[in-house]
Amino acid sequence: MSIELYKTATHACVMFTNLVPDEEAVQANQFLIVDHGEAVILDPGGNMTYNELSLTMRKYIAPNKLDYILASHADPDIIASLDRWMTGTQAKLVISALWARFAPHFCKLGKTDNRVIAIPDEGARLPYGKTSMWLIPAHFMHAEGNFQFYDPESRILFSGDLGVSLLSGTDAAHVITDLYPMPNGMEAFHRRYMVSNKILKLWVRMVRQLDISMIVPQHGSPIAGKAIGQLLDWLDNLACGIDVMGPGQYQLPVAELRAA
Amino acid sequence: MSIELYKTATHACVMFTNLVPDEEAVQANQFLIVDHGEAVILDPGGNMTYNELSLTMRKYIAPNKLDYILASHADPDIIASLDRWMTGTQAKLVISALWARFAPHFCKLGKTDNRVIAIPDEGARLPYGKTSMWLIPAHFMHAEGNFQFYDPESRILFSGDLGVSLLSGTDAAHVITDLYPMPNGMEAFHRRYMVSNKILKLWVRMVRQLDISMIVPQHGSPIAGKAIGQLLDWLDNLACGIDVMGPGQYQLPVAELRAA
Repeated sequence: MSIELYKTATHACVMFTNLVPDEEAVQANQFLIVDHGEAVILDPGGNMTYNELSLTMRKYIAPNKLDYILASHADPDIIASLDRWMTGTQAKLVISALWARFAPHFCKLGKTDNRVIAIPDEGARLPYGKTSMWLIPAHFMHAEGNFQFYDPESRILFSGDLGVSLLSGTDAAHVITDLYPMPNGMEAFHRRYMVSNKILKLWVRMVRQLDISMIVPQHGSPIAGKAIGQLLDWLDNLACGIDVMGPGQYQLPVAELRAA
Repeated sequence: MSIELYKTATHACVMFTNLVPDEEAVQANQFLIVDHGEAVILDPGGNMTYNELSLTMRKYIAPNKLDYILASHADPDIIASLDRWMTGTQAKLVISALWARFAPHFCKLGKTDNRVIAIPDEGARLPYGKTSMWLIPAHFMHAEGNFQFYDPESRILFSGDLGVSLLSGTDAAHVITDLYPMPNGMEAFHRRYMVSNKILKLWVRMVRQLDISMIVPQHGSPIAGKAIGQLLDWLDNLACGIDVMGPGQYQLPVAELRAA
């Protein structure tokens, strides 16, 4: 099932929340953004999402109008379906320069030849249709080379792993307008997967300059209304990642691993 | 081509350096460790490495004697071939608890059911054959949930992304015994992909307690002799990752991305 987060006669932001069976793997959102008949796909996901995403895309555009596959980073829930997208469309992959030579490992030999565009660390605006997608630096949140995507038409910030909650595919479809009580998994996820408060502070400072209607992460619910400010305030002060690591976490193991 | 890093009548450490065409993607090493007729595979790689790795494995063991696929983390150069290993063997995947619910995205529906073993953050020793592989915490180097593998029989530390150099598949087969002049890519890689000197220091302190014959990374050359101490000393003092990030790296982009 797809959800239209934003829709006008010439522009649409479509979200998919339930393409991964809840019992099989971590829930993940995928996005199709259409402008004047051309489109980009954001973080299309792994091998379980390709078929429905590809079919729904055809309701909005012809496959040859898919210009780019944008990947926030190179994790399997982000683009493990890359080989199929490289086969089924002529789209190019747009990904951090840090991962441009790693992404071809998802694919059979030759599939990505001349089809990988490396984003420099400082980010860029990527023109498509009659608009552009802003590729915003989000390094170390969590991946070392990492980008978020801002759509100036809908004013939605597609925030990747920032603002994530761990919900069912059905629950992830509901917009959160008050951050409290905090949704399931949000605190534990950010404390362990985000790298450092230093980075969160740099990011919050940058993002406060944007006019944002909604923050939409790659796992869990979209965040709108007063929850946006609540999220930024919370992240600005969150100790996480290496902040909470010490000698106790780096010890030679003694115990045997018990297989499940 | 495979290289025997260590070999006795009952134990072997086999390395593959040239299964990925140099022009296609970043060079990566894969490893097969055999003890008394049972085996584990370390970081078996992406879709370009499966065929030869799987064939060579059969010279050492029957496919049903492959007990585990050990993944240092969940990047595509590490285990994008997971779907094929899950199909071709009965081995279980052993990976950080942080990625246990992400790894199934590499696979078709149902392929990883009851076949993923999550490593807790503190690591463990994994019994196989008549020995065990030590799963050593290496979080944030680079992945947030990350393990290195120490083989107490050969005393080799399989260090994942620590000690990486960026070489051709042929050059990666040559052991480095002096770190200087530093091999291609080593400094730039660690400065950008490693997360923080705080973490490197914690890791160096832990690893100095191990009796190490060789440090063998997942990209580039094995490191032996005096180069081992040189590497530890260098990492102990290296500023990297978030240490060298500041407001300049987190700015809203203005320039347009030029497609290659």
